[in-house]
This record gives sequence, C-alpha cells and structure tokens, in this order.
Amino acid sequence: MITLVNGVPGESISVHDRGFQYGDGLFETLSVVNGSPHLWDRHMQRLLRGAARLDIHAPSESLLRQEAEQVCRSAGHGVLKIILTRGVSGRGYAPDKQAQPTRTVSLSPWPDYPAEQHTHGVAAQFCRTMISRNQATAGIKHLNRIEQVLARAELEQDCREGLMYDEFGHAIEGTMTNLFIVSHDSLLTPDLSHSGVEGVMRGLVLERAVELSLETRVMDINKNDILQADEVFLTNSLIGLWPVRRIEAKQYALGRITQRIQEAIVDAYAAD
Amino acid sequence: MITLVNGVPGESISVHDRGFQYGDGLFETLSVVNGSPHLWDRHMQRLLRGAARLDIHAPSESLLRQEAEQVCRSAGHGVLKIILTRGVSGRGYAPDKQAQPTRTVSLSPWPDYPAEQHTHGVAAQFCRTMISRNQATAGIKHLNRIEQVLARAELEQDCREGLMYDEFGHAIEGTMTNLFIVSHDSLLTPDLSHSGVEGVMRGLVLERAVELSLETRVMDINKNDILQADEVFLTNSLIGLWPVRRIEAKQYALGRITQRIQEAIVDAYAAD
Repeated sequence: MITLVNGVPGESISVHDRGFQYGDGLFETLSVVNGSPHLWDRHMQRLLRGAARLDIHAPSESLLRQEAEQVCRSAGHGVLKIILTRGVSGRGYAPDKQAQPTRTVSLSPWPDYPAEQHTHGVAAQFCRTMISRNQATAGIKHLNRIEQVLARAELEQDCREGLMYDEFGHAIEGTMTNLFIVSHDSLLTPDLSHSGVEGVMRGLVLERAVELSLETRVMDINKNDILQADEVFLTNSLIGLWPVRRIEAKQYALGRITQRIQEAIVDAYAAD
Repeated sequence: MITLVNGVPGESISVHDRGFQYGDGLFETLSVVNGSPHLWDRHMQRLLRGAARLDIHAPSESLLRQEAEQVCRSAGHGVLKIILTRGVSGRGYAPDKQAQPTRTVSLSPWPDYPAEQHTHGVAAQFCRTMISRNQATAGIKHLNRIEQVLARAELEQDCREGLMYDEFGHAIEGTMTNLFIVSHDSLLTPDLSHSGVEGVMRGLVLERAVELSLETRVMDINKNDILQADEVFLTNSLIGLWPVRRIEAKQYALGRITQRIQEAIVDAYAAD
C-alpha cells in the first residue's frame, strides 16, 4: 500500500480535514493493470463534475496524473483510489476562507474476485436499506456513503451484491455497482438524476451499447421489472461486468446481450 | 485546540479511517462552560443510539468522560467535539473484521456568536438544497453532512441560519439547528423520523415545554405553517435558543412562549 497525501508519501491526514469531519469530498476508484490506471479521462471528468457541484477547487489533472503514476509505477494489478476533500478547516459547516483542498492518491491490492464471476456470474439480493434521493448530490461520487455501508452489511454469504431502492421503489444501483437489465432485447438502466452514482463503466456500457445498435434506455426500473427481466448484469470500474444469475429465488440465464456487452468493454478493464 | 485520538494527544488520523473514506461514523458537539461539558448524559445517549443504529462498537462512557475532562480541564468556555468512526480498514464498504472504532475528542474555541442573537433574535432564510429522507439514518448525528455544507453555503450575509425541506416540502431543520414554531399557543416541531438530527437541545425543549404545560406537538410542518406562525425559534447545544425575527420578507415578534422556553433552558447552556 502506497499513499500520497497532497503529493507527500504518508498515511495520515488532519483530524480537522472536512473529509473526516463531514464527508465533505469526492473519490474515484480506478483499475490499475500493468502499472497503468484505466479509463483515466472518464474518471477525471467525473471528479471534475463532482468538484464543480460541491464547489471544491480540483487540482490540475496533470498533477493528479503525475501522482497516480508515482504510486502505480511498480504495481502490476491494483486499485488506485483518489480522494479530494474541501481540506482542513475550523469547526462548522462553513469552511475557513483559507481552506485548501486535500488530495490523497493511494494504491491497494487487487481484490480477490474469482474469475468465474465474470464468466458464470454472481448471485445478488435486494437490500432493506434504502438509498436516499437528493438532486444536489445524485450522480457524483461523494464521500457520504453510510447508506452503502449499511446495505453492504445486509448481504448474505452467498450474495456478491445488494440492490438498493429509493423511497418510491425505484431500483437505483448496487452498493458498489450500477445495474442493467435486458427486457425484450432492450438494454435498460436506472435513471440516476435523484440518487446513485453515474459509474464510469456504466457510461462506457451505454456508449458501447449504442455502437452495437442495441435499443438502450435510461428509465425508472422497479422490482417487478428486474424479476421479469431476461438478463441482469452489474458494472463498475474494477469488475467490468458481472452477469447476475440469481436474485433471491429468481434464476437468470447467461444472456446473449450481456455477453455482447462484456466483449465490447473487455479492453477497458482487463487489457493486459 | 487540544485533540485526543484514541486517547493519545495528536492531530492526525489514518487516511484509511472509514470516517475519512466513507463518512462512516458519528459525532457530538457539546458546550463547555467553566471546563465542564454540558448535557453530557443526553449527548452520550444519542451517541449510543447512533452507534447501535450503525452497528459501531462504542467506547465506554467512562473512558469518553475521562478523555473529555482531560481536554476540557484548562478550558473556560469552549466546544467539545467527539467523533466515533468504524475505524481503520482496507478498501470496500465491508469493513475488515479486525477493524477497531476510532474516537477523537477535541476542544475548539467558543464561536463568537453575538449575545444579541439570544435576546434580539436572528434572521433566517429557506435553502434550495434539500435534505434527503432515509429512515436508516434519520435522527442520529452521523458524519454524512454534505447536504448541510451545501445548504450553509447558500446563506446570505445577514442570515444566521438556513431552513431545509425534504422532497415533500416538509420543513425539517436548520443546517445546524432544530426548528420550533408557535402557532395558536401550541409549540410545534418537525417530525424527524425520515430526516434530520434529533438535537439534544430539542429534546430538552420538548421536556421543559411539557413541564410548562404548553401544548406541544411533533408533526409535519410546511413553508406556509412557518410563514403563518406567531413565533419561530431555533435550538442547538451551543446556542441554546435563538428567536427568529425574520425569514425573508416575513417579520416575527419576540414571542412570549419563545421567552418562556428560553428561561426554562437557560441553566442547560449558560450556567456559568
């Protein structure tokens, strides 16, 4: 594990950092293969979107790139995590005028996901913990993640992911993945304008689906839509795509469209 | 400023602390007068309620008390802040099994609130930033505070507080205070079962109001209820009670019930 805090090797931040005090910041999690972070530009675009939304002054992309290369240099396969917060400040929701953003860039070991999860798929479940709705924070990858922590803690041993609903019964996403379903040959994924994270891999899947001339829609999806779907799959930057083979009692085939998408994105997460 | 991190003087925590990574924790903010933290038992009860909800193992109250006394000993007037997180862990929403909670106990200077704010009252405004709804996190004082940060940033210069609504137009609270209104001699405060923080001072006000034989109700309150109210006031552990004299164009008198409540709680925040 290697970490740079504002460019300096270290493992600690100030107790007065607003990331710690209020979750007042953003993060990105990137797949690293052969020492190189994947989908860099897309992750940077989302980070900048989030920084604009929260009015946090983002460091230059070239600075982050240089620090990312520094921690990834000697890595083979790994996970690069970038955190950007509003920085160190006195107590209270209004930050000190002189507060400077904090950035941390760290490399973690690659998680030990079995390869069969890509090829044979995973089981998932529905979570009781709701995901809340707020247009102010929807879409961006901010540091307020208690809901995901609580939902993750619900997972039964044989389930690899939990699906979260909003208060109106719209399925939004998994705790760490975006959700896609295939219904009557159309590819559908939840609308994230009120909740959820616009995953980098989700964006890539939507683009590739259009290139494959698949009918693709972003829309409200409920539990019945999922249970009646022909195919279900999950995406994120680390796993790429996991087919879902079972949600509670419902079984799904390893679908044709799921496999076409998986082939279409394989360069983006496992190009080694 | 004095801080203890897990009992040891210091100003830093691990970058891998889940408080920093996910806002996965709780906090309490106490008023300190003559070196003594006020309403200690009530703050501890709320911290324990929150820890139970998030399934974080709380340290013993006697340990926290001892550390609080250590940082407050030489203080006159100040603010004691206690943070409790799920501790240091590897990446991912599921914590390491061996993760131990992190606690920080720190003393900050007393904020320079002018005394007239108690006697003459303050101006407030309505915020555009919504407060989200989630029964899993409502009521407790958790570390996911981006909504409050964004709402606080909206405040116009002459406004001391901003009121936040949920998606259904229910007024929930101020960014750092609980809200009370007086209407036809009844004391009303928002229902917090889906959003907001159950303030320690709010709890005390509700108790004292009953002792004063005031008709008191916890209920849904909307913008019109506030604009048509006879009196409005705000509470928290540091300020005690601020009468609200203006919200946007609407003026309020310094009300009789507000003053009775203020007298009834004066021992709890300024007993020096």
